[in-house]
Amino acid sequence: MQMRTNERLSRPTGFWGLFSVAFAPRPQPLHSLPMKLATYKDGSRDGQLVVVSRDLGTAHYTTGIASRLQQALDDWNFIAPQLQDLSDALNHGRARHPFAFDPAQCMAPLPRAYQWLDGSAYLNHVELVRAAGRDDVPERFYTEPLMYQGGSDDFLGPCDDIVVPDEAMGIDFEAELAVVTADVPMAATAEQGLDAIRLLMLANDVSLRHLIAGEVETRLGLVQGKPATAFSPVAVTPDELGEAWQGGRVHLALQTSWNGRKVGLCEAGPDMRFHFGQLIAHAARTRRLRAGSIVGSGTVSNPGVDRNGRREWPKGYGCIAEKRAMETLLDGAPKTEYMRFGDRVRIEMKSRDGQLVFGAIDQRVAPLALNSPPG
Amino acid sequence: MQMRTNERLSRPTGFWGLFSVAFAPRPQPLHSLPMKLATYKDGSRDGQLVVVSRDLGTAHYTTGIASRLQQALDDWNFIAPQLQDLSDALNHGRARHPFAFDPAQCMAPLPRAYQWLDGSAYLNHVELVRAAGRDDVPERFYTEPLMYQGGSDDFLGPCDDIVVPDEAMGIDFEAELAVVTADVPMAATAEQGLDAIRLLMLANDVSLRHLIAGEVETRLGLVQGKPATAFSPVAVTPDELGEAWQGGRVHLALQTSWNGRKVGLCEAGPDMRFHFGQLIAHAARTRRLRAGSIVGSGTVSNPGVDRNGRREWPKGYGCIAEKRAMETLLDGAPKTEYMRFGDRVRIEMKSRDGQLVFGAIDQRVAPLALNSPPG
Repeated sequence: MQMRTNERLSRPTGFWGLFSVAFAPRPQPLHSLPMKLATYKDGSRDGQLVVVSRDLGTAHYTTGIASRLQQALDDWNFIAPQLQDLSDALNHGRARHPFAFDPAQCMAPLPRAYQWLDGSAYLNHVELVRAAGRDDVPERFYTEPLMYQGGSDDFLGPCDDIVVPDEAMGIDFEAELAVVTADVPMAATAEQGLDAIRLLMLANDVSLRHLIAGEVETRLGLVQGKPATAFSPVAVTPDELGEAWQGGRVHLALQTSWNGRKVGLCEAGPDMRFHFGQLIAHAARTRRLRAGSIVGSGTVSNPGVDRNGRREWPKGYGCIAEKRAMETLLDGAPKTEYMRFGDRVRIEMKSRDGQLVFGAIDQRVAPLALNSPPG
Repeated sequence: MQMRTNERLSRPTGFWGLFSVAFAPRPQPLHSLPMKLATYKDGSRDGQLVVVSRDLGTAHYTTGIASRLQQALDDWNFIAPQLQDLSDALNHGRARHPFAFDPAQCMAPLPRAYQWLDGSAYLNHVELVRAAGRDDVPERFYTEPLMYQGGSDDFLGPCDDIVVPDEAMGIDFEAELAVVTADVPMAATAEQGLDAIRLLMLANDVSLRHLIAGEVETRLGLVQGKPATAFSPVAVTPDELGEAWQGGRVHLALQTSWNGRKVGLCEAGPDMRFHFGQLIAHAARTRRLRAGSIVGSGTVSNPGVDRNGRREWPKGYGCIAEKRAMETLLDGAPKTEYMRFGDRVRIEMKSRDGQLVFGAIDQRVAPLALNSPPG
């Protein structure tokens, strides 16, 4: 993009200049920035920004452009084109110091952020979980997104352990998509919300179900029931998704595996009742959102179908609570237990040509080591 | 403190060295750091850190030590002693370039933070508001703190307008105290929580009551009902509070004025059911808190007394919802309306010698100017 800017500056002026501009190949719009970004562990709180090749094979430090992703988001229009130049060079084998990309070295793309708001845009998730608890789904849930404010000071990298103090807390995963926003004005429209989307990621919104059950009674939302959230190794721009990004939705399948067994392959596109622009507009109704805010989709979930008089959910599930809800609806009681220490969860999304888009979240549940340092 | 560190390094060694150390005046413990900090507007997202004199008369840029408060919190043990040296110099008239301190030039001490968790530690606030709504107070509220996760990407400075898109949203103030923490390990004790407190501030946790009424029905907490929170001009260390800081509580009165009329002078100490260490431990039960996390007390509130067979609240109120609850309890219906555009709220706390400790939050409610830029 920097190159194109320079081209524009050096265009001929005057009559023939105008003529040549009119017939010149139309430049890509300034916001077309296909690229993948990640944050490498370097012992610091914010890590080191890298660009990652489309095939996730190689990466390159962004030294001299921006050291941290938040810095790029704070000044996106200036920094993103430079990152994209480097990304282009990396993808075309022209980058100077590429190295093999290792997702295990990644922090969350934003290791800490100023905001994490998680929606619940797949109504089937809400319907399932509430039906199992014999709760109706209020009418407003179909017209207005559900959303909670999460902690954003301490995100997990894609391969970091999910540390929980007690196995009996009802440890669950939630396979989600999330976007990172630019500055969003207060009372923004859904269209403004869409325009503000800078990056997309996968998320594992870890939940402690037995604590949530108590916290919802306070009516003030979730604190202890929502420990640190994990994000995919790579954050990608909407342009990087190409045609899979349509109408504020990602039209690809999100795959969840639990201890090596595939338990969900859920379509993220069609059943997303509120698209990301609408989720952002909901969040911004009474406040500005500042650059680097993360907004999640909620657990990706597809409705069941009736077969031979029995309800089935052929796409599987993106969180154990849904599986337990299905069991309760079918057989009167849940039989699948929540995660145990040592369990693993893997969350990934493939493009139509079978390549991983974001890399994989691949985590193990681990007990809290007492007296472990906070840092 | 830097000076003391140098002293220690240059202490004589050997037998006579040990002798001289044993009889040397005992140095202050390393964590004794009385000082006041603020963040000046400079057009950037994070502003410019300054130290402020005890009497709030003068300030001094911290150039060469740290430019942003988050930076100091990320590396407190190294940076705080240097800030304290500068603070000492400022308070003793030895600083090189002091300037007159102007609260109107302040952003929030942390203009954006990685976490904002607000407790509700004054049970009278909870009892009042729930009683007016004919709700019981569940037993657990007396043994476990209430807490919600707030947005932290966009705090208001102490004199910034409270911008609301619609006057009919039930605009309310909430006069609170808040602490800024160091890193806190998961499953920290209340004592560890106390040790982690780095700074204290006043907060105006602006609330939109009519939106909250709907949001509590989602059971996922508050998003639209809690717009940007404002903080006092100055953040102070616990040591700066001296004897007013006891047992994780601030033993001073918090004064609230609405359109110039004093409506509350509430004692922040005795009725705080859960002290700040307990609030931090509650928040850290299943997650680490990272440096710069802000934890609020909830509306400071004192219980009523019975006089001549009628309940009275001689200390007044720290939010309009409480006043409306008092009216409902006494007369069956609220008569005080929420804030209107143009209304002002002022929140301040005086030390026992009558000096403002944190400076004053002094804000006006203003309508959203359409098409205002997000920046």
